[in-house]
Amino acid sequence: MPTPNDTAPWRHRLHTIIFESDTVAGKAFDIGLLVLILASISVVMLDSIARLHQSYSNEFFIMEWIFTGIFTLEYILRLVSVKRPLLYVTSVLGLIDLLSILPMYLSVFFVGAQSLLVLRALRLLRIFRIFKLTHFISEMNFLGTAIKSSLKKISIFMLAVLAIVIILGSLMYVVEGGQNGYTSIPASIYWAIVTITTVGYGDISPVTSLGKLIASVIMLLGYGIIAVPTGILTTEMAIAARTKSQHRDVCPSCGREGHDADAKFCKYCGEKL
Amino acid sequence: MPTPNDTAPWRHRLHTIIFESDTVAGKAFDIGLLVLILASISVVMLDSIARLHQSYSNEFFIMEWIFTGIFTLEYILRLVSVKRPLLYVTSVLGLIDLLSILPMYLSVFFVGAQSLLVLRALRLLRIFRIFKLTHFISEMNFLGTAIKSSLKKISIFMLAVLAIVIILGSLMYVVEGGQNGYTSIPASIYWAIVTITTVGYGDISPVTSLGKLIASVIMLLGYGIIAVPTGILTTEMAIAARTKSQHRDVCPSCGREGHDADAKFCKYCGEKL
Amino acid sequence: MPTPNDTAPWRHRLHTIIFESDTVAGKAFDIGLLVLILASISVVMLDSIARLHQSYSNEFFIMEWIFTGIFTLEYILRLVSVKRPLLYVTSVLGLIDLLSILPMYLSVFFVGAQSLLVLRALRLLRIFRIFKLTHFISEMNFLGTAIKSSLKKISIFMLAVLAIVIILGSLMYVVEGGQNGYTSIPASIYWAIVTITTVGYGDISPVTSLGKLIASVIMLLGYGIIAVPTGILTTEMAIAARTKSQHRDVCPSCGREGHDADAKFCKYCGEKL
Amino acid sequence: MPTPNDTAPWRHRLHTIIFESDTVAGKAFDIGLLVLILASISVVMLDSIARLHQSYSNEFFIMEWIFTGIFTLEYILRLVSVKRPLLYVTSVLGLIDLLSILPMYLSVFFVGAQSLLVLRALRLLRIFRIFKLTHFISEMNFLGTAIKSSLKKISIFMLAVLAIVIILGSLMYVVEGGQNGYTSIPASIYWAIVTITTVGYGDISPVTSLGKLIASVIMLLGYGIIAVPTGILTTEMAIAARTKSQHRDVCPSCGREGHDADAKFCKYCGEKL
Repeated sequence: MPTPNDTAPWRHRLHTIIFESDTVAGKAFDIGLLVLILASISVVMLDSIARLHQSYSNEFFIMEWIFTGIFTLEYILRLVSVKRPLLYVTSVLGLIDLLSILPMYLSVFFVGAQSLLVLRALRLLRIFRIFKLTHFISEMNFLGTAIKSSLKKISIFMLAVLAIVIILGSLMYVVEGGQNGYTSIPASIYWAIVTITTVGYGDISPVTSLGKLIASVIMLLGYGIIAVPTGILTTEMAIAARTKSQHRDVCPSCGREGHDADAKFCKYCGEKL
Repeated sequence: MPTPNDTAPWRHRLHTIIFESDTVAGKAFDIGLLVLILASISVVMLDSIARLHQSYSNEFFIMEWIFTGIFTLEYILRLVSVKRPLLYVTSVLGLIDLLSILPMYLSVFFVGAQSLLVLRALRLLRIFRIFKLTHFISEMNFLGTAIKSSLKKISIFMLAVLAIVIILGSLMYVVEGGQNGYTSIPASIYWAIVTITTVGYGDISPVTSLGKLIASVIMLLGYGIIAVPTGILTTEMAIAARTKSQHRDVCPSCGREGHDADAKFCKYCGEKL
Repeated sequence: MPTPNDTAPWRHRLHTIIFESDTVAGKAFDIGLLVLILASISVVMLDSIARLHQSYSNEFFIMEWIFTGIFTLEYILRLVSVKRPLLYVTSVLGLIDLLSILPMYLSVFFVGAQSLLVLRALRLLRIFRIFKLTHFISEMNFLGTAIKSSLKKISIFMLAVLAIVIILGSLMYVVEGGQNGYTSIPASIYWAIVTITTVGYGDISPVTSLGKLIASVIMLLGYGIIAVPTGILTTEMAIAARTKSQHRDVCPSCGREGHDADAKFCKYCGEKL
Repeated sequence: MPTPNDTAPWRHRLHTIIFESDTVAGKAFDIGLLVLILASISVVMLDSIARLHQSYSNEFFIMEWIFTGIFTLEYILRLVSVKRPLLYVTSVLGLIDLLSILPMYLSVFFVGAQSLLVLRALRLLRIFRIFKLTHFISEMNFLGTAIKSSLKKISIFMLAVLAIVIILGSLMYVVEGGQNGYTSIPASIYWAIVTITTVGYGDISPVTSLGKLIASVIMLLGYGIIAVPTGILTTEMAIAARTKSQHRDVCPSCGREGHDADAKFCKYCGEKL
């Protein structure tokens, strides 16, 4: 985000309030926004409960329009206060902001579109912005790095799981057949995923002895398989943690490294780092 | 807890018995207390079983009042024996002690309040007090440190899970609708939590093909997500374990500790260890 | 795979296209193949859905024969282009390739054999071939090494789980009996596996109080047990990761590698690195 | 086990065959025994299936007596061949051996006691004996050490889980009540265990909105809690692995340690270890 030094003072000030949170006004704005988001999501949720919808349908409708109005105003203010609006509109946060107001306007034309208003929940991610000043960000970076470098390994693993699940699902389709709930191969694959992830709804479950035997093998397999993503992520986190905790500095005297981040003297020869 | 040097000897002695467990009398008191707590919880539990309630309702009632009487006496003794009673009353353990007798007195006015007597289970945490003398405490400290430093990271992660669950729940509400059990957005969010935590009751489960597809994605997602808290905690524990295994030596020059096991010089002041 | 230097040029070229993926033609061939595999699996899946089968039975049948024809042609080309066809036929990938076309030919004689066509899903593992040029392979090696060295430990653990599950299953058979769903010892063992792996379908669940108590113990046991494979795999991964991060340097004197990052002298022959 | 040097040669030979597995005869004996154990367990299992019981009741009965006869003979041989029979009888393996033949004799007096014959599954643990010569034992030791040192920490954790589960179960009993399946506090605690271990049978599940909310919190809590035993065990395993992989030798020249197990020269100064 460019710092708008050469813009009008009011625009600069607006930018500070809306986009930053290190001033009192900025923090107040962010917290107010969060409260509004939470209130708005609550209204959408309550409106989906049939009993409440019957009694307070109108009140919910009006409140939702008020929230949408406020968020639309906020969106316009954001557009106005940034130097390069297009960059904001196409950014992830910008798209989320747009997605959180669009469904209400769409609901004028398409009935039911307002259910998508819960996309506003994504805006809750702004909560991390408020804590920017604390060391929350470094924690997140730490987590982020580990998850990012795990993602490729986990994707490969997920591909293998998918292949296993397709084959096991088909096998169960052949073994159990439609009369036991395994009505089609996709349904059987759905069952295999339910089983291997240890969710186990029980809406479909094996009936024949052979089916139960195969299911048992799948479950024990899933037992070992569930260890893989955990192992990958933990290893990556351990690496990230070790890297973070280590000084990259080399001792000028003995040339050895591996000093702690808070070390001021070489732990091997006692020389100043 | 202040050591009551300047108090009456009987009060000092009472304090030693009730609050400490490194004397024979103190240990006997603690073990007796634990037995009473377990017995009291058992009575509440048994009383909740309809068949037993019909036959032994009166016996249970009398026993519960006896237990409450004993615990009330114990509470008063605690109040008397500590130097600063208010500090004890507002402490966590003090509040738990109060909570374990209050419901019975409340049950005189409010029917059913005695069900809350199981709050006495919290008093079982006193069990750790008895083992204070052994190295249990250091184990707990180890666990505690790791859990404490994980908590912030896991909270951030839980916030993200909550946002995911709200959005996925709402999505399923739109896709499946009320006739398939997804009667409202909160109910759908409940389902999403049941699914992503791999609990999978099966009281609500997807019926439509699209719903099953989305559910499959959620389950595979949950597969990866479940790895995150485990990864965080394991990493923190590994760090705590490594720290514990480190040199406990204090630098003779600057008095700081936390040196690596292979350190020959203080990393803070460069003095020879 | 032998490099066919001394074969006819067209055969060499064919081998390059079909078996390798570092040329443009080879990569195009592999991607085309993957698309065909996915399309073929999709047809088998869709054909298993009763509603679609009724309407498009013939179309699916024809498409499946076309796919089988193409895969048969591909199989013949592979046989022709390799120097030692027998080695290919008996290799894992060769067997998978054969298994992916055989069911269709068998379906002429045995009704229903075409359900096994989903074995083609195994061919999806070829996807890793395409990424051979990137560093995917090193990631896989890393995972492979860890899984391989974990396998023995996890097998021992699985044996212990099996013994536990047989005994607990039989116990529940005695406690709950046939009228509560535990109709036989194998069925009870199936239930024990469903429980200890935390799948929990709920098709069989304890009814008696004693059964519920035993089930609770099994669940809490499973809670600790699930930690074992994860612990094993994570440890192996951490070791593999550490090994990977070690010095890749080869000793100039004895030619062996695997030295620690901080090693200054070869640990095998004592020569300076 | 004492080596019976001073006993009769036939007794020594018997001991070698029955108790050891490093001779051909000893290994053959062990494998034969395993096959018998597996066959015997299979018969008990098959006998429990109502359909098979009706047809082959007599055959199963006779086979079970034959197996019991063989195992009784084996037990006597074991008693005869060891120097101190009482030590064997009271050892864990000795008790298991006795437990595997006793139920059949008891079944003469108590109907149904033969169901306990599956206790023979415990004898399968003898399988590890056969692999004694390989490095399986060291793997097991490794696992054993880690599990042993984790057990105390996991027990503390289990106590905390138990306290949580008692309180949450009672809370749900108050909130949901008997008409929704939470018929008593023990039943509600059973439900809480089913939920927090992520098994989730669905035989009891929350019906009221408040109940669903509390259940959601429990599930998310269980999400974090499941990480604890995994974290503990993984950390212990990592410590055990690190300890095992490190030479305890100190370099005679520079006095530093931490050398790999296969190191022949000090990696710091190049001196021979």
